[in-house]
Amino acid sequence: MSQNMYDAPSFFENYSKLPRSVHGLAGAAEWPRLREMLPEMGGLHVLDLGCGFGWFCRWAVEEGAENVLGVDLSENMLERARAMTDPPAREAIIYQRQDLETFRIPLAERGTFDLVFSSLTLHYVVDLARLLSEVRSAVDAPGYFVFSVEHPIFTAPSRPGMATAADGSRFWPLDGYQSEGERVTDWLVEGVRKQHRTLATYFNLLREAGFEIEAIDEWHPTPEELEAHPEAHQAWSDENIRPMFLLIAAKSRAEAR
Amino acid sequence: MSQNMYDAPSFFENYSKLPRSVHGLAGAAEWPRLREMLPEMGGLHVLDLGCGFGWFCRWAVEEGAENVLGVDLSENMLERARAMTDPPAREAIIYQRQDLETFRIPLAERGTFDLVFSSLTLHYVVDLARLLSEVRSAVDAPGYFVFSVEHPIFTAPSRPGMATAADGSRFWPLDGYQSEGERVTDWLVEGVRKQHRTLATYFNLLREAGFEIEAIDEWHPTPEELEAHPEAHQAWSDENIRPMFLLIAAKSRAEAR
Repeated sequence: MSQNMYDAPSFFENYSKLPRSVHGLAGAAEWPRLREMLPEMGGLHVLDLGCGFGWFCRWAVEEGAENVLGVDLSENMLERARAMTDPPAREAIIYQRQDLETFRIPLAERGTFDLVFSSLTLHYVVDLARLLSEVRSAVDAPGYFVFSVEHPIFTAPSRPGMATAADGSRFWPLDGYQSEGERVTDWLVEGVRKQHRTLATYFNLLREAGFEIEAIDEWHPTPEELEAHPEAHQAWSDENIRPMFLLIAAKSRAEAR
Repeated sequence: MSQNMYDAPSFFENYSKLPRSVHGLAGAAEWPRLREMLPEMGGLHVLDLGCGFGWFCRWAVEEGAENVLGVDLSENMLERARAMTDPPAREAIIYQRQDLETFRIPLAERGTFDLVFSSLTLHYVVDLARLLSEVRSAVDAPGYFVFSVEHPIFTAPSRPGMATAADGSRFWPLDGYQSEGERVTDWLVEGVRKQHRTLATYFNLLREAGFEIEAIDEWHPTPEELEAHPEAHQAWSDENIRPMFLLIAAKSRAEAR
């Protein structure tokens, strides 16, 4: 059973206050770049792994997706997602509780999805190779898999957090990059467990699962974004020191099946 | 004109003493992994960008390559490469002086190469997009491009070098990851200029030039290598803290032409 911090009351309360929880996709700094990686949504069958409050599911339907299956481990999140989903989107979206460590695409639904999406979820998954094989079975060529995770540079350190040098300049004390596996950090609550993987591992697991990687983005604010968001200058100056998010767009390869 | 530190006497003398200069490929820790990325060499036409002393050119011919063009900026290196090349390899290898900032594949040789190889050279090249377009014109589908560069995590910092925390643990003070461009460091001589690029940039430039990336390796010693090289334990313990080399195997995509 996966760690389910989202259903711990203290976590859920704090999580609900994050900009991306309150404002949805518009509150997620990396969303504009992730959106650019997505195919046209008209008529698509979409699967969202770790759908949370369902912001992406509803956006997909607004953009013309025919139906969306949003799965998440947290009952709290799913309940909130359902409450936020009005008709007509309600007809097109199914929110379903699933543990991504054991989630299997039902036999009848293999090959029926056009797009699998996942936002900041896969770095919690222990058996990623297993899940990627399920994802590949969900999409048949040409099918898309677009996702974001915490960047390997962000997940690696034994003491994550910016440090300050003697001259006042800031740096990210990287260590343990090649030591893959569990990292325990404090984020909204204590003891959040996530999985560190190198970039090579993300890349090569995708290839082995039968995907071609089409684009990689190590998110950081563009000059235009910095200009448009003066309130974020302080926080965003760190984003040029080290990448926090890794965005990947992949496509299923026919020959790997 | 590119920086030509290799022809500075003090640099060349020190460079000539490096394990990889004395022992060739066997002295390069990353070589076994790079070799795994290479196709079978039998009958291939090969181009080596930054051939140095010509170790790879001669290995390719020993492995059955039909002919090899090795190019390098340094007359010193090329002279040494020629002196080290005995018949029959001498018939199959051309060592040629070229500046990779301006190198053009001659019209008659476009599409005639099966493999372009480059070892620890491309992070010195300023206009990489231009060079990649030349590389793509050298190989026609299916053609291979296999290379190593200093890893973006290694090239990024304003103060590259391991640091020691208060508790004695070692870390790599990463900064400037998203600030691409020139880095000036001291390596064998003072003032060596290299180009920092993010991993996303390497990946996306290759895609744009018409390559599919088939494998990525962020070199670090395997447990077997550590066991086989007890003399290297000290130096290699740093390799688990941050990657030093990035190895990429790419293949030309027909549809991009």
